[in-house]
Amino acid sequence: MKSEELFALLRRRGYLWPSAEPYGGLQGFYDYGPLGTALKRQVEEAWATWFLGLSPDYHRIEPAEVLPEAVVRASGHLENFTDPEVRCGQCGNAFRAETVLESVRPQGLDGVPPAEIAEILASSGARCPRCGSKSLSVPRPFNLMFGLDLGAEGKERGYLRPETAQSSFLSFDRMLDVGRKAMPLGIAVVGRAYRNEIAPRQVLFRMRAFTQAELQVFFDPSGFPVDFASVSQSTIPVLRVADRDRGEGSPSSVPASDLVGAGGLPEFYVYHLAQTLRFYRESLGYPESVLRFYEKSDSERAFYNRIQFDVEVRLDSLGGYREVGAVHYRGDYDLTRHGEGSRHDPKVLLPSGVRAVPHVLEITFGVDRNLWALADLGLANADDRVLWRIPSHLAPVTVGVFPLLPKEHGAAALGVYERLLSEGLRARYDAAGTIGKRYARMDEAGTPFCVTVDGESLLNGAVRTVTLRDRDSRAQERVELDRLIETVRAAIRFPRPRRAG
Amino acid sequence: MKSEELFALLRRRGYLWPSAEPYGGLQGFYDYGPLGTALKRQVEEAWATWFLGLSPDYHRIEPAEVLPEAVVRASGHLENFTDPEVRCGQCGNAFRAETVLESVRPQGLDGVPPAEIAEILASSGARCPRCGSKSLSVPRPFNLMFGLDLGAEGKERGYLRPETAQSSFLSFDRMLDVGRKAMPLGIAVVGRAYRNEIAPRQVLFRMRAFTQAELQVFFDPSGFPVDFASVSQSTIPVLRVADRDRGEGSPSSVPASDLVGAGGLPEFYVYHLAQTLRFYRESLGYPESVLRFYEKSDSERAFYNRIQFDVEVRLDSLGGYREVGAVHYRGDYDLTRHGEGSRHDPKVLLPSGVRAVPHVLEITFGVDRNLWALADLGLANADDRVLWRIPSHLAPVTVGVFPLLPKEHGAAALGVYERLLSEGLRARYDAAGTIGKRYARMDEAGTPFCVTVDGESLLNGAVRTVTLRDRDSRAQERVELDRLIETVRAAIRFPRPRRAG
Repeated sequence: MKSEELFALLRRRGYLWPSAEPYGGLQGFYDYGPLGTALKRQVEEAWATWFLGLSPDYHRIEPAEVLPEAVVRASGHLENFTDPEVRCGQCGNAFRAETVLESVRPQGLDGVPPAEIAEILASSGARCPRCGSKSLSVPRPFNLMFGLDLGAEGKERGYLRPETAQSSFLSFDRMLDVGRKAMPLGIAVVGRAYRNEIAPRQVLFRMRAFTQAELQVFFDPSGFPVDFASVSQSTIPVLRVADRDRGEGSPSSVPASDLVGAGGLPEFYVYHLAQTLRFYRESLGYPESVLRFYEKSDSERAFYNRIQFDVEVRLDSLGGYREVGAVHYRGDYDLTRHGEGSRHDPKVLLPSGVRAVPHVLEITFGVDRNLWALADLGLANADDRVLWRIPSHLAPVTVGVFPLLPKEHGAAALGVYERLLSEGLRARYDAAGTIGKRYARMDEAGTPFCVTVDGESLLNGAVRTVTLRDRDSRAQERVELDRLIETVRAAIRFPRPRRAG
Repeated sequence: MKSEELFALLRRRGYLWPSAEPYGGLQGFYDYGPLGTALKRQVEEAWATWFLGLSPDYHRIEPAEVLPEAVVRASGHLENFTDPEVRCGQCGNAFRAETVLESVRPQGLDGVPPAEIAEILASSGARCPRCGSKSLSVPRPFNLMFGLDLGAEGKERGYLRPETAQSSFLSFDRMLDVGRKAMPLGIAVVGRAYRNEIAPRQVLFRMRAFTQAELQVFFDPSGFPVDFASVSQSTIPVLRVADRDRGEGSPSSVPASDLVGAGGLPEFYVYHLAQTLRFYRESLGYPESVLRFYEKSDSERAFYNRIQFDVEVRLDSLGGYREVGAVHYRGDYDLTRHGEGSRHDPKVLLPSGVRAVPHVLEITFGVDRNLWALADLGLANADDRVLWRIPSHLAPVTVGVFPLLPKEHGAAALGVYERLLSEGLRARYDAAGTIGKRYARMDEAGTPFCVTVDGESLLNGAVRTVTLRDRDSRAQERVELDRLIETVRAAIRFPRPRRAG
């Protein structure tokens, strides 16, 4: 499906819609409706179960979304978190330089210095995308953070965090205390981040408020022990800088052990690439054929990242590969900067016995973008129906419960529905329209199981059996109610990483 | 415990700490650590399970936290969401008028008109709380919303929502479509709201960023059908306006049926008061003796609220009753205002066949405040230990898993731990220190179950039994591993409202 078609479907079915819709919407902001909220929560839980499952010393925290100015000054965001903006002298509108130069420079402007952007702009004869005028200003840095005035005085400046990572860095000292000095120490945050995008677009791909799931792992730079044997035989679809320099766009499946040996990457980094791949495959259910781990070159990645691979997914709706996550080896940059900014010594006593600044491995995940990717990859016209093939543990509704005939079987079916709810299962009752229409609604929502209560269900007034229908095969079978609950429970367990026993 | 003592304990154990702690903190903002995050998520789930359980037509959504200016203009927040502020002519500091007048007017300034506040200030001889000067300004309205500049132009103004409710009102039309026109229609939001408090204080009670859980129920004003029989015999600890006028401060237990009859309240309202009470009692485990449903008078409540009872809890740490939630009958105010603001007809076709503006019943719940209340009510020195008596389904950790001797039983205990995690249970492994110390850590966190793996646990190399220790009684018994899982699963089910069968 095309982007507009997919968005229209998601909007119609109550997954999401523009914020403040009765007022014409608010650019770059979206509200999740009932199905979207349920799906988003499942995706967040799937992520947390996997990545917190990597170690008992990885913990989840929920920090405030507002940072004081001293923090974003130390992190470099106040100075550098900018997007080059050009302004039209004719109509007065402002645009991202990247948007204006889209046709002459489709690869974007990542890592291109401002002076060079100005040259490209001048030599390209670019015109205002709104009015066509040629009177475009030289590009100026536009800071993407939203500022806030705190307190009645308005003298204290705060910022909505541009990324969740800063909250983890600020919590490291306290967490080391709470975690009884264990290292590697992982701090995970799932929450909102905010960017004042000049040109929000592509629905969930460039939003002004979005949800990130991030894990920062703090480790002793003299060694990050991992169970590499458990991943060494896995292959990873990588597109390395050297391949790209040769004009290659498709990834190669390279065994993890080769990425470490001839590939020149550290074991701990490749281990986490492999675990990240497994998460996308096993928990989100993405086929390997649409995944690409895209290595960023020296000039493309932020200077403090020593190694960076973006996780990219090929999406029909957006016409190609799109970034949905990344694995960053950030070194000691962040703790050192905050040590300077807050005048604390950032060195800690490491397990190796020396005092040094821990290094950070960061695994990022765009919740909204992956929600879109799940819809793009899973939602399709299949024969005579719209079907969302989504892993059972992610489906917003796990079990649809229908009475065959609402009048005759309604009370019994409601009893089954209540029983499933009391077991903590995500059930929905539906008695409206024909059974076929009810199945169709559930197929579109990706509901893996539908059960129908009919005359045969009852024994001595109690429901003993139901008809269970499978979403993908449409096969039906009669099952005992107790067995149904076991089946459903097993199907919705979140996949967890295999750890060394 | 006193407030400072309780906060110190929560901070030391990693429940929460001031945001940006290495920079000296950020006034009015807190970060939740691992135990606090887990507890908060459980409290949110407990709330959602109960209130969404009231009807299959109640749904949860996740809207953006930013509202365009037109929305807060229509809602009245731009004009009226203010706190009277006085400024000291001597030291230049700003204060809430309420704070300055605390000693002369302990009941606060709710509903007192600005002119009257100025008079009280003048006649009281109030002094600046900071420098003691008498040169205080007349009170001026200070708007409590945080404003944002959206887009590169900076011309579009947005606001961090001061309450989650506005997001529900804006979603009503879309939700009516998605919900296939069912009414009463409930829209629940659990999320952040922001207020630029002049004087944040009392840790989680007056924050600048806080989490609300709210349910707005939209209903046909000609009738809101409820199963009143299921609550009519319940008593509710109310403190009504007439009682307060007589100087009464303690609530009376009044049967729901009397509140409807002689009490003059509508059935649907009392039904929801009773269900709200049951939630606090059965799901949060608050004793009835600390609860009070405090009726607000005409002058105290917002003019658009037709009926308002605040839910108050008596807390030792804060020296008296504190508001932790409320039940508001808001009438048609909100949809009418947004109809005018967005130039849409707010009337819809109601189940009764007429077109009219639906009314709104609103149930609000302060997540942070209730987290504090749970700590205040449950965390205490009991004999020789610090024990948090918290309902099992809310405990941050459900099962602590210990090897009796780490060297001999460590591998087997880790196996039990992994098994519990794979069942989706919140388990924590602890092999550090004596068994007594491990119990103590779990008691302080409110962990209801601790299991120890010892030499007797193993049969043919596999763990068959463990020693299970109960938090409150400290009784121990040997149980089969499979039975343990069933016991734990049953103990952590979220209570649900009983509905008419």
